[in-house]
Amino acid sequence: MSHNTFGHMFRVTTFGESHGPAIGCVVDGCPPMIPLEAAEIQLDLDRRRPGQSRFTTQRQEPDAVKILSGVMAHPQTGVQVTTGTPIALLIENTDQRSKDYSEIKDKFRPGHADFTYEAKYGLRDYRGGGRSSARETATRVAAGAIARKVLPGVNVRAALVQMGPHKIARENWNWEEVGNNPFFCPDAEKAAFYADYLDGIRKSGSSIGAVIEVVADGVPAGLGAPIYGKIDSDIAAALMSINAVKGVEIGDGFDAAALTGEENADEMRMGNNGPTFMSNHAGGILGGISTGQSIIARFAVKPTSSILSPRKTVDRAGTDTDILTKGRHDPCVGIRAVPVAEAMVACVIADHFIRHRGQVG
Amino acid sequence: MSHNTFGHMFRVTTFGESHGPAIGCVVDGCPPMIPLEAAEIQLDLDRRRPGQSRFTTQRQEPDAVKILSGVMAHPQTGVQVTTGTPIALLIENTDQRSKDYSEIKDKFRPGHADFTYEAKYGLRDYRGGGRSSARETATRVAAGAIARKVLPGVNVRAALVQMGPHKIARENWNWEEVGNNPFFCPDAEKAAFYADYLDGIRKSGSSIGAVIEVVADGVPAGLGAPIYGKIDSDIAAALMSINAVKGVEIGDGFDAAALTGEENADEMRMGNNGPTFMSNHAGGILGGISTGQSIIARFAVKPTSSILSPRKTVDRAGTDTDILTKGRHDPCVGIRAVPVAEAMVACVIADHFIRHRGQVG
Amino acid sequence: MSHNTFGHMFRVTTFGESHGPAIGCVVDGCPPMIPLEAAEIQLDLDRRRPGQSRFTTQRQEPDAVKILSGVMAHPQTGVQVTTGTPIALLIENTDQRSKDYSEIKDKFRPGHADFTYEAKYGLRDYRGGGRSSARETATRVAAGAIARKVLPGVNVRAALVQMGPHKIARENWNWEEVGNNPFFCPDAEKAAFYADYLDGIRKSGSSIGAVIEVVADGVPAGLGAPIYGKIDSDIAAALMSINAVKGVEIGDGFDAAALTGEENADEMRMGNNGPTFMSNHAGGILGGISTGQSIIARFAVKPTSSILSPRKTVDRAGTDTDILTKGRHDPCVGIRAVPVAEAMVACVIADHFIRHRGQVG
Amino acid sequence: MSHNTFGHMFRVTTFGESHGPAIGCVVDGCPPMIPLEAAEIQLDLDRRRPGQSRFTTQRQEPDAVKILSGVMAHPQTGVQVTTGTPIALLIENTDQRSKDYSEIKDKFRPGHADFTYEAKYGLRDYRGGGRSSARETATRVAAGAIARKVLPGVNVRAALVQMGPHKIARENWNWEEVGNNPFFCPDAEKAAFYADYLDGIRKSGSSIGAVIEVVADGVPAGLGAPIYGKIDSDIAAALMSINAVKGVEIGDGFDAAALTGEENADEMRMGNNGPTFMSNHAGGILGGISTGQSIIARFAVKPTSSILSPRKTVDRAGTDTDILTKGRHDPCVGIRAVPVAEAMVACVIADHFIRHRGQVG
Repeated sequence: MSHNTFGHMFRVTTFGESHGPAIGCVVDGCPPMIPLEAAEIQLDLDRRRPGQSRFTTQRQEPDAVKILSGVMAHPQTGVQVTTGTPIALLIENTDQRSKDYSEIKDKFRPGHADFTYEAKYGLRDYRGGGRSSARETATRVAAGAIARKVLPGVNVRAALVQMGPHKIARENWNWEEVGNNPFFCPDAEKAAFYADYLDGIRKSGSSIGAVIEVVADGVPAGLGAPIYGKIDSDIAAALMSINAVKGVEIGDGFDAAALTGEENADEMRMGNNGPTFMSNHAGGILGGISTGQSIIARFAVKPTSSILSPRKTVDRAGTDTDILTKGRHDPCVGIRAVPVAEAMVACVIADHFIRHRGQVG
Repeated sequence: MSHNTFGHMFRVTTFGESHGPAIGCVVDGCPPMIPLEAAEIQLDLDRRRPGQSRFTTQRQEPDAVKILSGVMAHPQTGVQVTTGTPIALLIENTDQRSKDYSEIKDKFRPGHADFTYEAKYGLRDYRGGGRSSARETATRVAAGAIARKVLPGVNVRAALVQMGPHKIARENWNWEEVGNNPFFCPDAEKAAFYADYLDGIRKSGSSIGAVIEVVADGVPAGLGAPIYGKIDSDIAAALMSINAVKGVEIGDGFDAAALTGEENADEMRMGNNGPTFMSNHAGGILGGISTGQSIIARFAVKPTSSILSPRKTVDRAGTDTDILTKGRHDPCVGIRAVPVAEAMVACVIADHFIRHRGQVG
Repeated sequence: MSHNTFGHMFRVTTFGESHGPAIGCVVDGCPPMIPLEAAEIQLDLDRRRPGQSRFTTQRQEPDAVKILSGVMAHPQTGVQVTTGTPIALLIENTDQRSKDYSEIKDKFRPGHADFTYEAKYGLRDYRGGGRSSARETATRVAAGAIARKVLPGVNVRAALVQMGPHKIARENWNWEEVGNNPFFCPDAEKAAFYADYLDGIRKSGSSIGAVIEVVADGVPAGLGAPIYGKIDSDIAAALMSINAVKGVEIGDGFDAAALTGEENADEMRMGNNGPTFMSNHAGGILGGISTGQSIIARFAVKPTSSILSPRKTVDRAGTDTDILTKGRHDPCVGIRAVPVAEAMVACVIADHFIRHRGQVG
Repeated sequence: MSHNTFGHMFRVTTFGESHGPAIGCVVDGCPPMIPLEAAEIQLDLDRRRPGQSRFTTQRQEPDAVKILSGVMAHPQTGVQVTTGTPIALLIENTDQRSKDYSEIKDKFRPGHADFTYEAKYGLRDYRGGGRSSARETATRVAAGAIARKVLPGVNVRAALVQMGPHKIARENWNWEEVGNNPFFCPDAEKAAFYADYLDGIRKSGSSIGAVIEVVADGVPAGLGAPIYGKIDSDIAAALMSINAVKGVEIGDGFDAAALTGEENADEMRMGNNGPTFMSNHAGGILGGISTGQSIIARFAVKPTSSILSPRKTVDRAGTDTDILTKGRHDPCVGIRAVPVAEAMVACVIADHFIRHRGQVG
């Protein structure tokens, strides 16, 4: 019953809207004795932060995180460590531009949650979208930074692999490039193309979708559980919970539908460190349990719904009308989903890591 | 913490392996006063049951369901109704062919959960795959039949829309055809093609993947919840938890990545019954909450891992070896996933329906 | 959201009514590789079974338990062990006396759940009480037998320490005596007194309450968690969930209210095996976490509500009437609560044992 | 898996230690459209706040609460209302006296959670007790204030009914008196006695236990659920989770053990508003479900563990030593438990109220 909580043993509860005093989260279930500084969390937040290039919203949020609880200086070493108690993180909202919301206050913006929140709750936070705003994802990134610390030896990275219809060239994949362009793109050549392409989209007042791939290296075999505790099931839920996501794949994903059993089989041979898979169509998961290979997931993000072209809609009074959404928006909201997806996958793996350690003799 | 339980208010816990005495499930949270007979559940089970055509495993299981608890003759009307207490369903295993499992007992079958169960638990049920067997899904179908009864006015249907690389023609979609062929295919012409195609696959000892689409009509607006209670997030988890599923989409899914904001917007106009969407790229869900349109989900199933061609593997002793899997297997396991997917989506909607309006009718 | 499930990592879901085909439970989260035979579970069930003396209901139920899933012969050793997958247990109902229920069908029996079930669900299972019947507790005892196997070195025992106003003499406490009388009483002298006392109660058609004490030895320090994961909080919930229980105490319990801080302090001294407590007012739990001492809990059971003296009540039509409950009932329902309480406490400890092993580095 | 979360539909997650920057909580599942101001929450907090009389710790905390999220001015009425999204509440810590903790840093205080936290986590927050401090309960009171708003017509009140061995006179019970003395005592005469009595305890550096009774009026019939969703089971867990609580009773509680079935039966007669109970031995709950009568619970609080008399203990190095706890402590910690207990019971009832009738107003 966890509308705003995810995870079972490593549990993250988030709160906050873009137009309240603050957003934040509570991470419950983090093991004790893990060194943790706010600066480490800040590093991940800074990667997600808007206003860093012309390709993301110009909203300027310093997104400075404070740790409110759950850590203390170790009595003997003096190093700040987790205590095993809930870690609350707070990010104050500072750039709540006092704009005029009269345009959208009573209209349902197509592609937004305006109509559905109103249907569910009878009201909605029209100032920035309330909980449906991507601003909430900052708190997930903060939680993910803690999840990473729970998982020594595990490296969770993500990259944008498609913008609009334009896919990267797999053979050009270079993780080093991801930090060299504003798109988290691992293909330098394609990143240069995306810059021009997205400039065109942005200047026309339009928006475009994207596909992101997440890769987790170093995950030990045996995480996950049968049936409804499958690690791929949890990853699917976690990625689908990110704003604007419309599809999730593991390993070969939808392409697997076109394969034969022979093609899809990940054969095995003994290697120096035990049984070794010769391919990874499965994306590192079999029967819902990690194989020890890299876990690979991909997800599709729809184009930003807020665009400058007028769209047909209705208002709360039931009158046909048009709407165009002014304001500071991302032309490709998929870009900022990259660090969010890393965080979500890190949280899922940390959760299963803790579950596994407990349940098995 | 629900390895074998799914749902929050409408909770389904399943148990059983193909080589034990029985499989079954407990449905907790079903509202009281709903007429329910075993025969109604049996109807859904019969659609999933193997051994019905040459295109599914020849294992013959009557899959006769018994209701063990949670119903009684209504004291006044005499009609058998739910009482609000847990409904336990039991399906006895009858066709456990006493075959020789020495071939696979100590070898890890590629694409199966053999290696990962062994990594997690230190042992595995090599006789039929234990909990990783598709047999478990019979209990989900049974639970789904109860979920349907919780949802008057909601119709959850699924159809196979792609086998191997061969997609159906959307313009030929006819729900009536789904019951007329062994593939649950809504395109009669394509179904005829599939019969020949799958015969070829089957005779060569190979297998092939598939894509299935689930459509839920009649879902009221307002089901689901923000962030981690999103109905699309729950559907993604539910479908990904089905054996061999590698990808899940909502609405336009991965195709949405290639759309512009203008193309993707589901515009609205006032209709006779209030605000009406003019398209359904979103698949009936915005911000994780149902719009009142049809909910549309698709998922990809990998080819059956058990094939007759020998594949490279290793055994528990760490020796390189080959394996080919004899026995009764589905050449396209996606076919039998069709009623399972309907059941899972029905359960998710029933859960959100009860969360939205309370447990008691 | 677990009306019929308890536990977090070691999860027990129960089902069934006394007048359906069977009762049972699903134990999810039991670690793998634990030797387990139905006969071991049967031993605990036999202790709880009614019809064993004139002091419990004469309903004769063999209560023979079957394991439906979650175990297999270990591939190497042949010993039947748990597999880590859900263990379903089934107990068929055999002695459903086809009595005439017309007397109570439409009347609310004082002290029973008749009125409240009707208020909640709109109907109730008047044949034996449905889920409110003590028959459900047989499934808890079965689950508890598995919990015990998860906890090597832990010994959970319970004893009846008060019947009506008559308390046992603490100085006569002898665990060996518990099996020598039909009251699970550790004081042989008092047990003899209870036999006469309860005969009088029984013959007069009345009933009487009782107090039971549960002691868990061998529990390691460190189980439990702060705030809402406190092991005493979970024990309180578990014991209060048993039929007819109206109060729960840990350690000195209500007597602690009358103590000063000096009296209540459990002082410590170094012993041969580390820090040792010199007393156990706390009942083995401080701050919700086990101290390594014996965990001690007590609970009060109200008198059986079904008595032969007529009581004032109303019927469903809203007419004042009287009711007396014929049939086979326990004059002191607290007696049969003894093995149930042991089972519940064993389940709570097993749950925390698994949680602790996972969460802490 | 909720170490720091309680509730199912109305979920409260708390965080914070007395020596961090702040404490707080997140209330998830509060229905929308409920008017809510920080000032209303502050009223309840002020009742619990320490430093208000010589009988509670002299720590001075303004305990000013801020609402960080989950409310907005209603778009039409302008009244601040809940939005259905998580309500985060923050209370900054201001009076963290920078005292010298060297005395207790390495010693285990008898009766405190020092030893058990160290056993569980390997370290503990010796500055004020970390999560085991009663300071955490301020956040529960804040959450309880919101729960009360969810329950129009329900009145949850508590009173101290016993201090040390001295019980109040039931015939003198007057709810009006509860606010007239620093003990929340409903018996004016006994309150005067307590003042002298507790002065003596306090001046001698000792402490004393207490018993508190909680009464919830106006609870509709039908809340709660069978077996493990029993409302009395949830109340037992909630009250036992409060610091220093060692026992919980519902209705007649432990006294019920000495009653006969005739004495314990709450008989019924038709009243003007339907079936009416003629007594309330059951404390308003039958079969785990509310009867519509007042829900009555009592709990015992042990004496404050921090006392000025030296007690025997050991230190982390394993050396026998003595400890006396200086500092600002409550001579009777039960006093401050009164508003905490009200809050916990209000939260449990709100949770069951929402479970019964759905999340949305």
